[in-house]
Amino acid sequence: MSLTVVGSIAFDSVKSPFGERERMLGGAAVHFSLAASFFTEVRPVGPVGEDFGAEQFEVLERRGVLTDDIERVEGGQSFFWRGRYEYDLNVAHTEDTQLGVFAEFEPKLSPAAEAADTLFLANIQPDLQRQVRAQCAAARFSALDSMNLWIETAKDSLLEAIAEVDCLVVNDAEIRMLTGESNLARAARAVMGNGPRAVVAKQGEYGAALFTPEGFFALPGFPLEDVRDPTGAGDSFAGGFLGYLDSHDGDLDEACLRRAMGYGTVLASFNVEEFGTERVSRLTREEIDERLATLHGMTQFEPLPAA
Amino acid sequence: MSLTVVGSIAFDSVKSPFGERERMLGGAAVHFSLAASFFTEVRPVGPVGEDFGAEQFEVLERRGVLTDDIERVEGGQSFFWRGRYEYDLNVAHTEDTQLGVFAEFEPKLSPAAEAADTLFLANIQPDLQRQVRAQCAAARFSALDSMNLWIETAKDSLLEAIAEVDCLVVNDAEIRMLTGESNLARAARAVMGNGPRAVVAKQGEYGAALFTPEGFFALPGFPLEDVRDPTGAGDSFAGGFLGYLDSHDGDLDEACLRRAMGYGTVLASFNVEEFGTERVSRLTREEIDERLATLHGMTQFEPLPAA
Repeated sequence: MSLTVVGSIAFDSVKSPFGERERMLGGAAVHFSLAASFFTEVRPVGPVGEDFGAEQFEVLERRGVLTDDIERVEGGQSFFWRGRYEYDLNVAHTEDTQLGVFAEFEPKLSPAAEAADTLFLANIQPDLQRQVRAQCAAARFSALDSMNLWIETAKDSLLEAIAEVDCLVVNDAEIRMLTGESNLARAARAVMGNGPRAVVAKQGEYGAALFTPEGFFALPGFPLEDVRDPTGAGDSFAGGFLGYLDSHDGDLDEACLRRAMGYGTVLASFNVEEFGTERVSRLTREEIDERLATLHGMTQFEPLPAA
Repeated sequence: MSLTVVGSIAFDSVKSPFGERERMLGGAAVHFSLAASFFTEVRPVGPVGEDFGAEQFEVLERRGVLTDDIERVEGGQSFFWRGRYEYDLNVAHTEDTQLGVFAEFEPKLSPAAEAADTLFLANIQPDLQRQVRAQCAAARFSALDSMNLWIETAKDSLLEAIAEVDCLVVNDAEIRMLTGESNLARAARAVMGNGPRAVVAKQGEYGAALFTPEGFFALPGFPLEDVRDPTGAGDSFAGGFLGYLDSHDGDLDEACLRRAMGYGTVLASFNVEEFGTERVSRLTREEIDERLATLHGMTQFEPLPAA
């Protein structure tokens, strides 16, 4: 099986109450790929500039991420984001965004990337998402993330992009904004009426909820006493979620989707423990499965007392 | 077994995007008592005014709530609250609060109320909570709710009140505010260091989390497409939670506390479906157990695929 992701490959400068870092490797496709790399073969698609060098490629390649579809643009600069977090860590305050080579990005996928079984369209302009979706016509399962900017400036394109995927994976506030419906259950049903068979509502520290025609499932965020940098948590969630789904041989049924939600939750939790890719870079599959078992134990209850 | 609750017994005027009602029966002790009445014998303690009549007593008595400790003050007026909710229903905007007879309240419990096995100190001034706690010295399990007002104006008294109960049941923002610790897991640990053996963090539509020395447990809010009036959701949660615990014969162990969280979640969900006490007044134990089973189905997953 194999997984293609299109999205930003970036440098991030981040300051939180627990430290700061300058120009770390970051971007949605990077966080997603590292998380998914524990489950399957991943190909990130996206442009980088001359500032993106061997050190950055190595972080990806050490985790087995296939970097052939990362396009290095001569004379260009990589996407750059600078942000900071206050004590509550829930809101990212953007101080600078430089699109760099992303401003002129035209996705051109290799045959291997086009042949992916699973596709993730990370948060980029929805017309670009649709171009990549069309190139990966054979995907068994496809999912899409987006943000308030595209809901405000390109809503029609975004709705068309959403209609073409199996699953929407966004923050719950964005599901409400997209549908104009404040009740999340109704909003998710409205999204499913437009095409997708599943909606994942990311809820920050509160976890994530899965809506399908068959039902509802929710997991809390994994409780951590040390959270240092929430950047990339949502993309790490999506990487664990879709990486597991891609690795699964059988039907992507409700039980499989729920387990994938568990892996997403676990990958997001490791990601936020340290800055940028620091923690996930040295993570092991054993640690992931251990934490999934712990999460399972934190969510189970028996509705009737033992007889 | 029996349960005593002290807290407001009130009239509420509420406006939400889904309707409005004038001077409904409300108050923390009322919502709590109705929810707990499905599990055990409940005695609300608190003052009402001359405006509190047979109609209000009947709502409680039809559910078997024991009203002997409701003190009717001649010439007084009952606690009154007027509030409204916007479309997102998450924030109550208070438009009027009249303490009425609550301003002079001195708790005087009957011997039956003092002998309760379980005690809930709903959100009132912490010195009053301590007076009631001292009168119910024999309680097997006691819990306390509070709010930002008391953290700001009576923090020392509140910390002493918390030190004297088994469980703190408050909104997660209040746990953070109380401890000055933005990380919820650390904040809950700090509270447990001060006495309680359990902390329940209410998280509105996101559900509720339970912290104990043994571990962490969380449940999502029950997903509803129709929420009309969130007033009293937290008190209904506490009523289901403590009502179930009071009814439980064996040890109040982790499995029992988790099941109680389930009952709390279910009672809160019924409460918000209609205005005031409308829905819970005509609820049945069968509906409660059915919804608990549904909630159970929404939270279970298998970490490993079936072999």
